[in-house]
Amino acid sequence: MKAYGKKTWIVPEGYIPKGSNGQAPEMTSHESISILNTSDKKANIQIYIYYTDRDPIGPYKLSVGPRRSKHIRFNDLTDPQPIPLVTEYSSLIESDIPVVVQHTRLDSRQAENALLSTIAFGTN
Amino acid sequence: MKAYGKKTWIVPEGYIPKGSNGQAPEMTSHESISILNTSDKKANIQIYIYYTDRDPIGPYKLSVGPRRSKHIRFNDLTDPQPIPLVTEYSSLIESDIPVVVQHTRLDSRQAENALLSTIAFGTN
Amino acid sequence: MKAYGKKTWIVPEGYIPKGSNGQAPEMTSHESISILNTSDKKANIQIYIYYTDRDPIGPYKLSVGPRRSKHIRFNDLTDPQPIPLVTEYSSLIESDIPVVVQHTRLDSRQAENALLSTIAFGTN
Amino acid sequence: MKAYGKKTWIVPEGYIPKGSNGQAPEMTSHESISILNTSDKKANIQIYIYYTDRDPIGPYKLSVGPRRSKHIRFNDLTDPQPIPLVTEYSSLIESDIPVVVQHTRLDSRQAENALLSTIAFGTN
Repeated sequence: MKAYGKKTWIVPEGYIPKGSNGQAPEMTSHESISILNTSDKKANIQIYIYYTDRDPIGPYKLSVGPRRSKHIRFNDLTDPQPIPLVTEYSSLIESDIPVVVQHTRLDSRQAENALLSTIAFGTN
Repeated sequence: MKAYGKKTWIVPEGYIPKGSNGQAPEMTSHESISILNTSDKKANIQIYIYYTDRDPIGPYKLSVGPRRSKHIRFNDLTDPQPIPLVTEYSSLIESDIPVVVQHTRLDSRQAENALLSTIAFGTN
Repeated sequence: MKAYGKKTWIVPEGYIPKGSNGQAPEMTSHESISILNTSDKKANIQIYIYYTDRDPIGPYKLSVGPRRSKHIRFNDLTDPQPIPLVTEYSSLIESDIPVVVQHTRLDSRQAENALLSTIAFGTN
Repeated sequence: MKAYGKKTWIVPEGYIPKGSNGQAPEMTSHESISILNTSDKKANIQIYIYYTDRDPIGPYKLSVGPRRSKHIRFNDLTDPQPIPLVTEYSSLIESDIPVVVQHTRLDSRQAENALLSTIAFGTN
């Protein structure tokens, strides 16, 4: 299987809303990236979080198995440290083999949820 | 007519919500891809669905006629097997001629619907 | 001023919802493309609408002045014929000079509006 | 640190809704761009706003520090002049070093907010 995609992905928009309406965990306000690894090898991923007024934090390390999809909520990243809510950030996602990354947010602060999504900016 | 686009498209984010509000089928929660074939030939399409914890399923086969648009709800794919609801997945769309693919979700789990959309990641 | 962008743009997803809530024209359900022409020359635009079961219709002709933005609602296209509501379509936008195109939908069929947007697929 | 991205970014869709529901400033209707500067140098940014019926206004000048994220609300731009509400526009973002730009709108004119987002169109 071919390894489709790029090794570096960037998501400038980052913000985890505080407060949710609806049943957890589906309707919990969250921000996520979805990663597809089409190859026959494990993809080793490193995420760096950039802030407006302090140095970037990372790497957050994880992996995506061969021929597997993984959806990661930024809310769930804890090592080296959680991402604070209601805080503007950007993210850089690096992989040792090509993958494809999409950014999504579900915002349920108000009674009805809102969604946004975009393919991230990929480069090598 | 020129065949615009790419032969391989990837949508990392995939999730069919369970539950809907509003009149079916328009307001049924769904996830879809829209494909445009600008060429004078039929485009033969193969879709593969990637999961987080098992091997990919496919191909789901369909075609888009010459100079035709087709919108496909992932909800409606049944052969070789339906895509389970409330399950994270990614999709790979392959065509024998260049086409363009856009990903869209309508989520009507809550009383008011939410939408997301992005041009998929295209490559050759 | 440089003419940034591409001469051909494709939006696979097209669907004008029927029914709206809220004050017209802002909150009327609509689908639109926004075009930026950064150059010093007028951009002559031709739009073709592709359907699922009949030949494409067009060109719809319009222009974007030098160093001007133009937002066009598909709802407002009438010549050579209006685009029917509640109908799946795709669009091809051609310009004689490079421009940039973004696709947006406002859906106010339910009491609270939903939005989607993506940069279209650009090629030459 | 490598300077990822492009020096020129374009967002054809621009419109600041008038009216908001919910707590300010989080839920105020707004349109924003998020910029990531992964490099070790300060990025000097110039924004130009294009209108439908008059010449573009700019540059709006700002900077993004080395290894910093910045989210900018178009609502907050005042020099050389504020962007009027309920007015169609497009934007051109130029940087002296490569950056990545994403466009987002939060529309809370109705009781429940709607969101859209896309990576901008990048070029050099």
